[in-house]
Amino acid sequence: MSKKVNVAVVGATGAVGEEMLATLDKRNFPVGELFLYASSRSKGKTMMYRGKEYKVEELTHDCFKGRNINVALFSAGSGRSKEFAADAVLAGAVVVDNSSAFRMTPDVPLVVPEINPEDIKKHKGIIANPNCSTIIMLMPLWPLHQKNRIKRIVVSTYQAASGAGAQAMAELEEQTRDVLAGKPAVPKIMPHRYAFNLFSHNTAIQENGYNEEENKMVKETWKIFHDDTIKVCPTCVRVPVLRAHSESIVVEFEKPMSVDEARKLLAKAPGVKLIDDRAKNMFPMPIDATGQYDCLVGRIREDISSTNSLALFVAGDQLLKGAALNAVQIAELL
Amino acid sequence: MSKKVNVAVVGATGAVGEEMLATLDKRNFPVGELFLYASSRSKGKTMMYRGKEYKVEELTHDCFKGRNINVALFSAGSGRSKEFAADAVLAGAVVVDNSSAFRMTPDVPLVVPEINPEDIKKHKGIIANPNCSTIIMLMPLWPLHQKNRIKRIVVSTYQAASGAGAQAMAELEEQTRDVLAGKPAVPKIMPHRYAFNLFSHNTAIQENGYNEEENKMVKETWKIFHDDTIKVCPTCVRVPVLRAHSESIVVEFEKPMSVDEARKLLAKAPGVKLIDDRAKNMFPMPIDATGQYDCLVGRIREDISSTNSLALFVAGDQLLKGAALNAVQIAELL
Repeated sequence: MSKKVNVAVVGATGAVGEEMLATLDKRNFPVGELFLYASSRSKGKTMMYRGKEYKVEELTHDCFKGRNINVALFSAGSGRSKEFAADAVLAGAVVVDNSSAFRMTPDVPLVVPEINPEDIKKHKGIIANPNCSTIIMLMPLWPLHQKNRIKRIVVSTYQAASGAGAQAMAELEEQTRDVLAGKPAVPKIMPHRYAFNLFSHNTAIQENGYNEEENKMVKETWKIFHDDTIKVCPTCVRVPVLRAHSESIVVEFEKPMSVDEARKLLAKAPGVKLIDDRAKNMFPMPIDATGQYDCLVGRIREDISSTNSLALFVAGDQLLKGAALNAVQIAELL
Repeated sequence: MSKKVNVAVVGATGAVGEEMLATLDKRNFPVGELFLYASSRSKGKTMMYRGKEYKVEELTHDCFKGRNINVALFSAGSGRSKEFAADAVLAGAVVVDNSSAFRMTPDVPLVVPEINPEDIKKHKGIIANPNCSTIIMLMPLWPLHQKNRIKRIVVSTYQAASGAGAQAMAELEEQTRDVLAGKPAVPKIMPHRYAFNLFSHNTAIQENGYNEEENKMVKETWKIFHDDTIKVCPTCVRVPVLRAHSESIVVEFEKPMSVDEARKLLAKAPGVKLIDDRAKNMFPMPIDATGQYDCLVGRIREDISSTNSLALFVAGDQLLKGAALNAVQIAELL
């Protein structure tokens, strides 16, 4: 790409928005003009990009008009995406949307560039970025699935504060400081005490007994892998970690898959880094995944409770591969 | 029991030792004489029990002699138990050992009082207290297993600092304070950074790819349930929580088991408390399990990835039901 691309970042002041700017910079995305949008609360703020100051403008139905925006990276929540993404498309932009607003819309591709880049071509103005837990789970599973079809996934997540935004991250820090000082923990953003505690994911429980986050992991897996026969049983849990998600995964294949074979496939898979040192007890940890583009995978071992089944553990930066990086990668492919 | 029982607490100054004293008091255990033992480091310290000051004595091969100790509660680590438990038995005491030293010894009963109290009778001087993660997992599974045989368990743990002792709890607090103050995290007791991080359980990985903690969960389940055909696939993880363990469990039965049936069985099970409010998103949390005798169980739902299978989430106080309470309950049955 030598042509310059005019980029809008919607939700620029959020945790993901900030990482989108950092990722555009780090990956040398050929940014031409840059427009930053956020809610009226952030209007008038300024943000730096490559040494230049940019004003944050208020997100409105007319804000994209006449600006020749090529790509609009949306990360301002599902409600804002539903309300404003069409305006960006009508103004000529392709929207890469980090929210859940359009993920299950049949005409909207749901893309992880390492997995289903070809789906991008089918877009009609909007491309959806999958849920962070889904991306981080599927990154190590895809290379295995291509070799030996996955039949069933049982996954338990250890999700960081960042998935609930910058305010949740601040709440975890502030509340922990309070608790350490002997003060009471006062939940504000999160529904429960977060300091030195964990709780079932803070999305509503749906009719099937699974929360929204869990049902996303099931349905998005089907759409990204183009295979809705894969059975998925997720349990999503928030843990007091700041910004990288971890997941304990047990995966059943159609045929036998040895630990060695899985290790070899994962060692050469793009976007995945093998951290699997049994002697040193070194495995994926969120603190090591933080700031990294790659998803860390390890603890690969035979599932001693079944056949054709492996257990593994993964950690990935929720704000990067789980959100900003994946969105920028999609923009790169456009 | 109206007769007084002379009690020794070995490892009295540790996190579990302290809770043993508190539990003896709270449950009105008929303590006659009380003897407190610890390593030479703690020699000369004093501890209070029911308003009376007790000296902590050094644990030696001769320390139990001539004291007419009826029950010795050991929680000073596996090495100390191996070295000194026989001395207590020879001095006439029944040892309830919280360490892993004798758990898999064929002649030593491994007991959870709500599950296999009858095994206590077979003791020859030593009764073993199971691993904390095992107890907390089996408490809600036992009432289900009695109704409908369990074939397979896939479990991922969220284990607290307390499982590694009082020093690990202090490390989590101090390190978190340091990180919040912008200082570097310096691991001392734990092998990895603990503040706002998590890591695979800090026991050695054994030949089968599972760490010691995980293999304990498998083998102890077999021994306590008297059924070594149950398949168990555990993943043990330390999370930055202070003293209650949580576990995400997927359990497969021989025959169908409805969510309603499981709820009914668990609602009336001893030692288990049902916290399962889908509308309010209220489920077991470690902070709510802390200080409670009961293990909290909830998030009971159909496993949408299999048949005859349920998913659930449990939280239990590692120091109480996971250790001190279970040991005192065994002593009560003696």
